[in-house]
Amino acid sequence: MLNQSLALANIKKLASKDLNEMDLVINAKLDEREKLVQDITYHIINSGGKRLRPILSILSAKLFGYEGKRHINLSAAVEFIHTATLLHDDVVDHSNLRRGRPTANKNWNNKSSILVGDFLFSQAFVLMAEDGDIEVLKILSKAASIIAEGEVKQLYSIANLDLSIEQYMSIISAKTAELFAAACQVGAIVAGADESAKLNMYNFGLSLGKAFQIMDDVLDYVANDNSLGKNIGDDFQEAKVTLPVIIAYQRSDNFERVFWNKVIDIKLQEDGDFMQALKIFNKYNIIETCADIAKKSVDEAKACLSMVPKSVIRNSLMDVLDFCVDRKF
Amino acid sequence: MLNQSLALANIKKLASKDLNEMDLVINAKLDEREKLVQDITYHIINSGGKRLRPILSILSAKLFGYEGKRHINLSAAVEFIHTATLLHDDVVDHSNLRRGRPTANKNWNNKSSILVGDFLFSQAFVLMAEDGDIEVLKILSKAASIIAEGEVKQLYSIANLDLSIEQYMSIISAKTAELFAAACQVGAIVAGADESAKLNMYNFGLSLGKAFQIMDDVLDYVANDNSLGKNIGDDFQEAKVTLPVIIAYQRSDNFERVFWNKVIDIKLQEDGDFMQALKIFNKYNIIETCADIAKKSVDEAKACLSMVPKSVIRNSLMDVLDFCVDRKF
Repeated sequence: MLNQSLALANIKKLASKDLNEMDLVINAKLDEREKLVQDITYHIINSGGKRLRPILSILSAKLFGYEGKRHINLSAAVEFIHTATLLHDDVVDHSNLRRGRPTANKNWNNKSSILVGDFLFSQAFVLMAEDGDIEVLKILSKAASIIAEGEVKQLYSIANLDLSIEQYMSIISAKTAELFAAACQVGAIVAGADESAKLNMYNFGLSLGKAFQIMDDVLDYVANDNSLGKNIGDDFQEAKVTLPVIIAYQRSDNFERVFWNKVIDIKLQEDGDFMQALKIFNKYNIIETCADIAKKSVDEAKACLSMVPKSVIRNSLMDVLDFCVDRKF
Repeated sequence: MLNQSLALANIKKLASKDLNEMDLVINAKLDEREKLVQDITYHIINSGGKRLRPILSILSAKLFGYEGKRHINLSAAVEFIHTATLLHDDVVDHSNLRRGRPTANKNWNNKSSILVGDFLFSQAFVLMAEDGDIEVLKILSKAASIIAEGEVKQLYSIANLDLSIEQYMSIISAKTAELFAAACQVGAIVAGADESAKLNMYNFGLSLGKAFQIMDDVLDYVANDNSLGKNIGDDFQEAKVTLPVIIAYQRSDNFERVFWNKVIDIKLQEDGDFMQALKIFNKYNIIETCADIAKKSVDEAKACLSMVPKSVIRNSLMDVLDFCVDRKF
């Protein structure tokens, strides 16, 4: 298995020419727009994100031998949808930091983030309409709708310690994995893959997206360097009930449950509470348990990928999968 | 000319069967959704809005003899886009009251309004993708994008007393009139009207929308009853520079300009300032001047409509135009 930075570098390299072309499409869509729209969009798009979603669209198309150009515009559409949700999420979560830089809502204000998000979301559909494929429009509009409903579900569950693992999986499936799935499926569609291959790529993306989000939630507690680019402990501070807390709460004794109720349910957090959470995680092997669950999703994704003909791109996508559960923590 | 409530009742009557069918489509799209999504959407959709935009889609289709069903789903899409923008606008404007009831952001919270808005926006595109007409998708995605950019422009101009009438018209054209225009054009498209007729309906909607927004901005100062359903003086309080203030500032003497700078630019408002604004409006015939400008747009819209074959529906749309400048104030 490659180390994570090499795996990421490899897939970026395979997609880099197309990513550059995608950037030209993005620039063209922002050209002659209001300065605020440009400033906020470039602030978030050029902030060093992994660009996994457009890479997935690009490589999924290439996986089936596609040599045309449609995936360029559609990967830009996927990136616009993703960027719009990030802008709105940061407002909803009151986040101050993303990828090591101030969020748009912090640097400008909530109003601007909401409206520029709406603009990018619309531009995603402008791009899709220009592409002209109703199948793609159906998939990405459905994905966008599922994402928004997933975020609403998350609102409900924010301090709910009784959230089950199943409910958590359903939330992350909606708010994160669905766009990974749609991005992969769209790649297969433009390449003219058959129905079963398209479904297979959807399932590949869905499993990959779940693994990715689980590890993202784990890293919010235990990232050991600055690679995450966000505040460690954000989820804890916001009393967000993610997989580590769900399992820890399930395994906790009565005394520890009082602690969880205090910091999550009542949201009464004092100095040392975050360390106390990590101590409980350590006692019950929470991080390893979460990684095992993520690993199961990765294995599902690998099974999907194994149905695709062997190629350099397939190998690189396998590496992405390993990268997902091998992210620094 | 009919009085406004009769004019409105007439067009509603002509569209009522189709509006009821549209409601069934809306209900179906909300069925089995998260309760919060349902509650917020029904709160705003059933709050007694005039439903002008879907009515325009419906009647524009019928104007060209359309007897099919596509306009039902597409008018629901138009209503969803409109509802999504209302939810986000109320967050951006910190509004507490809409149509005489608490806004969703007031009744629930900003987060919920943002996310449910995103959901409805996505559902609009789900409906359009199901309809399957790329021409419609191009028009409504472009309209959505123009609306968002118009809102951004408005953010910039919020306390800018030097805003010109042209700049104001460009903002309201984007944030309001574009959706009126698209709604009318979509009606013509489903009816299979020819290119010039579709463009004509677009221009009809655009002129109607501009007149509508001008009068909305006027009514924010001088609505004389509860029919507006929002707080009189909201725009003033938020230091929004709309047409009445633009023209009043242009006509004001130096002494009055000090007043405008205080209440709008510095936003230092005291008891009696709103009455003082109305006094200046009265001195310079601001309300009549604004109504005259709206009337010009109405005349443009009537010119468009006169190119359409005579019918009961054409008459009723003429009445809508009169209704626009005859709204209570």
